[in-house]
Amino acid sequence: MRKLEIKDIEDIALGAALLGAGGGGDPYIGKLIAIGAIREMGPATLIDPEELADDAQVAAIAMMGAPTVLAEKAIGGNEYRALMDMVSQFLGKPLDAIFPIEAGGVNSMLPIAASARMGIPIVDADGMGRAFPELQMVTFTIGGIDSCPMALTDEKGNTVLYRTISNKWTEDLARAVTMSCGGAVSVALYPMTGKQLKEYGVRNILTRSQRLGEAIRTVKDYEESGTSEDHFLEFTEGYKLFKGKITDVLRETRGAFNFGRVLLDGIGEYKGRNAYVDFQNENLLANVDGEILATVPDLVCLVDAETFSPVTTDALKYGKRVVVVGLQCFEMWRSKAGLELVGPRYFGCDTDYIPVEVRCRGGQKND
Amino acid sequence: MRKLEIKDIEDIALGAALLGAGGGGDPYIGKLIAIGAIREMGPATLIDPEELADDAQVAAIAMMGAPTVLAEKAIGGNEYRALMDMVSQFLGKPLDAIFPIEAGGVNSMLPIAASARMGIPIVDADGMGRAFPELQMVTFTIGGIDSCPMALTDEKGNTVLYRTISNKWTEDLARAVTMSCGGAVSVALYPMTGKQLKEYGVRNILTRSQRLGEAIRTVKDYEESGTSEDHFLEFTEGYKLFKGKITDVLRETRGAFNFGRVLLDGIGEYKGRNAYVDFQNENLLANVDGEILATVPDLVCLVDAETFSPVTTDALKYGKRVVVVGLQCFEMWRSKAGLELVGPRYFGCDTDYIPVEVRCRGGQKND
Repeated sequence: MRKLEIKDIEDIALGAALLGAGGGGDPYIGKLIAIGAIREMGPATLIDPEELADDAQVAAIAMMGAPTVLAEKAIGGNEYRALMDMVSQFLGKPLDAIFPIEAGGVNSMLPIAASARMGIPIVDADGMGRAFPELQMVTFTIGGIDSCPMALTDEKGNTVLYRTISNKWTEDLARAVTMSCGGAVSVALYPMTGKQLKEYGVRNILTRSQRLGEAIRTVKDYEESGTSEDHFLEFTEGYKLFKGKITDVLRETRGAFNFGRVLLDGIGEYKGRNAYVDFQNENLLANVDGEILATVPDLVCLVDAETFSPVTTDALKYGKRVVVVGLQCFEMWRSKAGLELVGPRYFGCDTDYIPVEVRCRGGQKND
Repeated sequence: MRKLEIKDIEDIALGAALLGAGGGGDPYIGKLIAIGAIREMGPATLIDPEELADDAQVAAIAMMGAPTVLAEKAIGGNEYRALMDMVSQFLGKPLDAIFPIEAGGVNSMLPIAASARMGIPIVDADGMGRAFPELQMVTFTIGGIDSCPMALTDEKGNTVLYRTISNKWTEDLARAVTMSCGGAVSVALYPMTGKQLKEYGVRNILTRSQRLGEAIRTVKDYEESGTSEDHFLEFTEGYKLFKGKITDVLRETRGAFNFGRVLLDGIGEYKGRNAYVDFQNENLLANVDGEILATVPDLVCLVDAETFSPVTTDALKYGKRVVVVGLQCFEMWRSKAGLELVGPRYFGCDTDYIPVEVRCRGGQKND
């Protein structure tokens, strides 16, 4: 158990935005939400899953919708209470703790704000170890854990409670309401026991985010020696896929998702080469000179070529210089069940999954 | 209090389909659902609103969606129980009775089936006195009665519970889920007290439907004397607007609604003249030779030119011969609040509301 104070927030937001793999929301917005809550209510309490009783009642808190909309819709203090009340009323008992559903600039921050405001701990575990666009895409689905009862609320005070026959149905029915509510809503979902979270959660996600954020923040110390990129790749355990200038961003907001492709012209040692990255909220696939170098569920991250700050898909802009980095995903995603949920074919990418470390070794070509 | 037996069902379905004004579902489907329930469980119990205690807990049961889809999706016996359980759990008490939300071939029948299956009475009152396409279009909205907590379920077992800030928001959020569930779902909504139903409900709706149905069924007795049409207009208190052959039906299923226009060439005394009727699930407006003769909230009904059986919008077919009849709506709809909810301008018809009896007297022309 440790306290999360204002000084911790910046690094967590920064690191979580990297793990968001382009999605999970703008870390600047997320930071403001968490800092606002801590300033008003005092620090949040972060606990390890092992500190939870097996029969503890926990649930995830998140925003759902297109990141571009998340950035424009505020979340107030009332939403958390409304969500927790709905879920608690349905379960017949209060929540002992909450946890983030995914890593991301906004979705790592909201549960911290909720923890500070509600006075219950936040658990250092999530359901993705990164961000994914759809709500069934969690390790909990692999574990057969129900996303319902799931509560949804918008900033106006409309609330919806779901009980569905599968987590994909929850996604479909919640997405429909999200669109009708203007493209972004707050949700409480995956109510489960402490035991279930210990078994299927991705552990240390906030602590890992914080360490990554700290490293990104201090990477400028290596600027003079010209080794900041090496340093960045070392602490992220990342594979450098490309370095380039954004020449075009194709975007479409459809079904409360941001779909698109960002086109890159090589710079530095990549001069004369081309790449693109496809995304659905999160980056799905990096293709360099016609060769796929990384796909979901591995993380494809774009970071600023100078500062190594993560660039979310809604912040992609013509002329921006970025490094494209591949990170290995949480091991459970590489199982058969994991790849059925979040493998490249689910997202319409015509390739089998090949781990980023294999693709980058050049051992196997894309098909 | 009286029992509704199998012998009562046919007439109620027939009359309700007339009051459905083109919507409310196919009376043949509705009839099968109600007869099936009564055959299996015994008769339903119909009570007058006056038989309800002021503090009785009641709610409406209905199907929501496009009538064309209603006709293709079955409703099983389990949906009613799921809906009632959800609403009861939320209210903290069981329902004492249910009532229909609107008159229509399916939506008058479902609560009868639910009553037979659940063993609780159905109240002889609804919220429209006809059918309307959107769920906020009820007299209860005029009375400030909340549509929520509203429960929704599909045939697969997905359930959703709503609490919204307005009945229009309930419509929007329920419509979104209805579309995702394939275009038609079952709902329980407008939970209220006996006192509220007595104050704002449209009374005698099932009894009136039954009498109308009986009259339609026996209209053939007047065939030989050639006075069946006069007889039909007399017992429905209807205004004959047109008689013609359907020459085209323009249709679009959009947003879980059936939108369209039916074009008519005059026959009999209307030979050489033209008319059209616009609809959104229900008929909205009848235009004869460029002149509007009736609009919502008055009822525009198409009936078979020979049998005077009501023709629902999903049964419109090229070549069919129909009489277009206008019926006066429930008085509350003609108030300012009523016309804001269901007047022609709400539906995008560029005309003020003028009562059908005034338009047909020729006293005022359409604008």
